[in-house]
Amino acid sequence: MEVINSIAELRLRLASRGRIAFVPTMGNLHHGHLALVSLARQHADCVVVSIFVNPLQFGANEDLASYPRSLQADCEGLNQSGADIVFTPSESELYPVPQTVQVEPPPIAFDLCGKHRPVHFRGVCTVVAKLFNIVRPDVAIFGKKDYQQLFILREMVRQLEIPVEMLAGETMREADGLAMSSRNNLLNPAQRMEAPRLQRALQLVVQASRQGRRDFDAIEAQTTQYLTQLGWIVDYIAVRSASTLLTPLPDERQLLVLGAARLGMTRLIDNIEFAL
Amino acid sequence: MEVINSIAELRLRLASRGRIAFVPTMGNLHHGHLALVSLARQHADCVVVSIFVNPLQFGANEDLASYPRSLQADCEGLNQSGADIVFTPSESELYPVPQTVQVEPPPIAFDLCGKHRPVHFRGVCTVVAKLFNIVRPDVAIFGKKDYQQLFILREMVRQLEIPVEMLAGETMREADGLAMSSRNNLLNPAQRMEAPRLQRALQLVVQASRQGRRDFDAIEAQTTQYLTQLGWIVDYIAVRSASTLLTPLPDERQLLVLGAARLGMTRLIDNIEFAL
Repeated sequence: MEVINSIAELRLRLASRGRIAFVPTMGNLHHGHLALVSLARQHADCVVVSIFVNPLQFGANEDLASYPRSLQADCEGLNQSGADIVFTPSESELYPVPQTVQVEPPPIAFDLCGKHRPVHFRGVCTVVAKLFNIVRPDVAIFGKKDYQQLFILREMVRQLEIPVEMLAGETMREADGLAMSSRNNLLNPAQRMEAPRLQRALQLVVQASRQGRRDFDAIEAQTTQYLTQLGWIVDYIAVRSASTLLTPLPDERQLLVLGAARLGMTRLIDNIEFAL
Repeated sequence: MEVINSIAELRLRLASRGRIAFVPTMGNLHHGHLALVSLARQHADCVVVSIFVNPLQFGANEDLASYPRSLQADCEGLNQSGADIVFTPSESELYPVPQTVQVEPPPIAFDLCGKHRPVHFRGVCTVVAKLFNIVRPDVAIFGKKDYQQLFILREMVRQLEIPVEMLAGETMREADGLAMSSRNNLLNPAQRMEAPRLQRALQLVVQASRQGRRDFDAIEAQTTQYLTQLGWIVDYIAVRSASTLLTPLPDERQLLVLGAARLGMTRLIDNIEFAL
């Protein structure tokens, strides 16, 4: 496995590598990421993983500085998972001048997480478009834990005709159901005990829906109240159409419940796809 | 020469065509365009020309409906100039859903022509990025007549790391100095007689600068007044740095004068690069 910092060198290395699969990450890798790498391995001759904590996708009041970084451990895990190349550009390599050219995301980018992180998905789209232009992958892999991100990036790829196949990896969970996330490392022991409740709360929403309730507004409000009473600061709990991420039409049956909530300073997200 | 309307078919045709040069156009081609095609011919195994009048780059009050279209004559000229493939997508082929994902251009896109056409360069960047993703050219060719467009697209390519070499073709002129433009066809005979004066006015700016004047604001105002008295509606006359398109620093010597002005409903642009 090679670790490459330079765009020019990466391009040289990739010039004759056959079919390329690409897994963009911000590092501090967990089993969820490594499962994406294993999925990538099945789809290509050459698996490229990028590690770049992208400042563009953090708001001014967000956790860019405290975002966990662990390059050496990341590389060990990637080597074992079958990655061929790890691309670890510095900020000045990827953004040598202020990035004024950006990819404006679709309107759904300003709903859900985007309501609370207004610059986030513009930054995600811009860095992913740029990384796609550098790596030129045949296939790219993203995790379903960041479902809205996956949805928006698929829309970007479709609307800009980016020639890449988008694959989704399932969310990996700890034994107690907590979705694996780099931010889990930021939880103190008490928060870590409480954290799986977000997933359980989403399961309650699925249950209520399956029992025939379509008053999603009320279910969302009840779930928010439940979590709030237990010390969470809830950004949103939302039942949405799986195909549009908008409020479900009366006859829609392929749904998704998404949640974002904070324990102390740490913001967790999770979601469940379900069919009625 | 093949004429192709479908993105999927174009991709199939280009899969094994070696080095590709790409000339994006809006059709109604003149010798300026054909010179770009000849330049493309020297740089590639396969020359692709797109003809697409891009609604995204026209404001609501602009001349999208009256923009001249002449597909058959265009194809004859392209065939003679050595194009291999003409890509002529319909609007629904290129924009099957509303194009909410767009490429936000750099700040200079809201100065000069962008002051008068605020959505223009966002539309240009978006369609060119999309066409680049479809055609995946090794080299792309744009005319210097649309100097600000060339500058902005180069900035887009650089900032998004789009793997394409950008080449510029010189402005082609009629015998009387008028820059060739598809919009020249919209001029009535009296306007056509008057039209070369824009170029001559820019030459006067160059002369004044070469004579040592650095009071560009005053030169611009005088030139605007001169054209206005002759019936032009002047959007701007501007002396700028060739390297930044911003107001020249006191010691800058590689300059550019750009002008945009209307005769009746027809908006003409032109520019001259010069060194002091």
